[in-house]
Amino acid sequence: MKILLYIILVTILLATSSARYGVVAQQSKVREYRIANEHRILEEFVTLLSIPNVASDHVNIRRNAALIIEMMRRRGLEPRLLEAGNSVPPAIYGEWKVPGATRTIILYAHYDGQPTDPKQWAGTMPWQPTLRSAALEAGGTILSMPKPGEKIDPEWRLYARSASDDKAGVMAILTAVDALKAQGIAPTSNVKFFFEGEEEAGSSHLGDIIRDQKLLEADAWLICDGPVHQSGLKQVVFGVRGDTNVDLTVYGAKRPLHSGHYGNWSPNPGLILAKLLSSMKDEAGRVTIAGWYDDVAPLGETERRAIEEAPHYDNELKTQLGLARTENAGKSLLELINEPSLNINGMSSGDVGALARNVIPTTASAVLDLRLVKGT
Amino acid sequence: MKILLYIILVTILLATSSARYGVVAQQSKVREYRIANEHRILEEFVTLLSIPNVASDHVNIRRNAALIIEMMRRRGLEPRLLEAGNSVPPAIYGEWKVPGATRTIILYAHYDGQPTDPKQWAGTMPWQPTLRSAALEAGGTILSMPKPGEKIDPEWRLYARSASDDKAGVMAILTAVDALKAQGIAPTSNVKFFFEGEEEAGSSHLGDIIRDQKLLEADAWLICDGPVHQSGLKQVVFGVRGDTNVDLTVYGAKRPLHSGHYGNWSPNPGLILAKLLSSMKDEAGRVTIAGWYDDVAPLGETERRAIEEAPHYDNELKTQLGLARTENAGKSLLELINEPSLNINGMSSGDVGALARNVIPTTASAVLDLRLVKGT
Repeated sequence: MKILLYIILVTILLATSSARYGVVAQQSKVREYRIANEHRILEEFVTLLSIPNVASDHVNIRRNAALIIEMMRRRGLEPRLLEAGNSVPPAIYGEWKVPGATRTIILYAHYDGQPTDPKQWAGTMPWQPTLRSAALEAGGTILSMPKPGEKIDPEWRLYARSASDDKAGVMAILTAVDALKAQGIAPTSNVKFFFEGEEEAGSSHLGDIIRDQKLLEADAWLICDGPVHQSGLKQVVFGVRGDTNVDLTVYGAKRPLHSGHYGNWSPNPGLILAKLLSSMKDEAGRVTIAGWYDDVAPLGETERRAIEEAPHYDNELKTQLGLARTENAGKSLLELINEPSLNINGMSSGDVGALARNVIPTTASAVLDLRLVKGT
Repeated sequence: MKILLYIILVTILLATSSARYGVVAQQSKVREYRIANEHRILEEFVTLLSIPNVASDHVNIRRNAALIIEMMRRRGLEPRLLEAGNSVPPAIYGEWKVPGATRTIILYAHYDGQPTDPKQWAGTMPWQPTLRSAALEAGGTILSMPKPGEKIDPEWRLYARSASDDKAGVMAILTAVDALKAQGIAPTSNVKFFFEGEEEAGSSHLGDIIRDQKLLEADAWLICDGPVHQSGLKQVVFGVRGDTNVDLTVYGAKRPLHSGHYGNWSPNPGLILAKLLSSMKDEAGRVTIAGWYDDVAPLGETERRAIEEAPHYDNELKTQLGLARTENAGKSLLELINEPSLNINGMSSGDVGALARNVIPTTASAVLDLRLVKGT
């Protein structure tokens, strides 16, 4: 719930004046609107969250798109699907043209979610939205959905796949439209809407969708797909890192071998993978691959000042996350996310836990994601 | 099927003369007995293999024990259960006393199997024994069980959990008893039978079972739980490595973090685990943990000669297994399995494959098994 409302605020702030007095007055109006409409907002959001949204699930991903089209049509945003083939999740386009406006902004969010294993969920299922009295890690317990008239506590948490990343973006944008229209306020810019359906699968067709459509030209894109600042403060981020994934598989013997009869002799692919991964970063967390940082475009004076002036929150965050130390110690989180990174999303070889066996496994796999910055 | 017959031979060889002429004559008698009885042997074995046998599955492990008791009773071996508590898989004891014998040997096998994930099985299920025309990796196809009178090809392969390790041991020993009795031959030693039910779970109650029972005294134990020599030759192995398991878990942040927002800053437990595992062995495969080899009792002259005189099969084995190089290159498999080893049975962090996500996982785990030799 919190994420949703912060993003509404960011949207509205940018669409109106940023003078301090005006901002406070607007915030208060936004809060009033939210309180008056929260049951309807929650209900609509829960409906959206109930549809499975993994990009490779062609049937369900189009059910999401159809619902969003319907939600936009109700708001008069003239939605249409942007297609790049039958088996590609469609993007959704819409617009709010403002007479006399000289600028155009595009509001972006994505409605697909990362793949997920329901068995790894704690207590509830990915596409059965569930309200909790607090965050899971704070011991939040399951609540029934509030009946009409019942107060909704903004500290409650809604658990479902993409409840924040990033159906919250879609919902926040459409709710902001509702709020503006209800107040009789029009934005000062033309607003276009672009909701993507395969962001979490790498946006491999985004180029095709955009190239085929002239209608996505604008003065600025506002990407509503980011976290609330860890402190709870609102933030606008200018630019994000790109991302590319690498799948790695190391092969050992053709069949699993008994570790008593072959251990010491047949190479263990898990160990080879461990050595390979270890070689990619030093103890401090710096990537050691040759040339890794060579083509990074240095930050400009403006960016450096923005980082310096942003709230310093690393210590609080370390406490929250239970971290004794961080990678690249001595640099702040904000500095570090302006550098390219190499992360191990997952790795697997043989089995651990109850299924572990005394074998030399045949393979070991890892998935990496490489975050890229300007110049790389 | 091959494993079964080799172990019968080893058993019989040891129970009778080892003069070369006698051995050949015995082998021929054994083959005749097998051909005359293979349908009955196969049917009894399939029945035994059909009962799930993970040591922690208390109900089914006792069903195995009950069936083996019945199989031994039919052969006049006076079986009984050796217990160390209700929730402990029982061992099974039996005996064949020979009037005038001055020595006693114990034949050992275990009837429990390693944990297994049916999803990882290729085509057939762990406890649904299935005959194939050849090994899976050689393209073996599923055959129906042969009808009475149909010839059984010794090159067929029977797939089921523990079809070799180690219900084959139980079946081979009991079949050898049948064969000897059918020929009117008694062994020259008293024979005791000891079938264990939690070997694959670490035999943690074996001490209790043996301490409580004087009846397990003997001049020698013959452990029928080992592989055929890779060349297909029969082998008797004097001693095996011990084994102990280590579970390792590395913890990162308390909750999974978005790799775009936190990568470079929040430590990745997969990388830490990779560095930890890497540090345990050098590039050649030698364990680098301080003192690892210090207390290894050196091999004696007899052992060294046995290793030298054994068939050298490493190159053929490398080709079969598709290995370009081995650990500790320069030493043979037989030398190396006389040294302590450290093997990664499995490792896991986050997800790979279709479920991989751009996260910094919260934990990374590995299971190691340490093979121990005399002195360690």
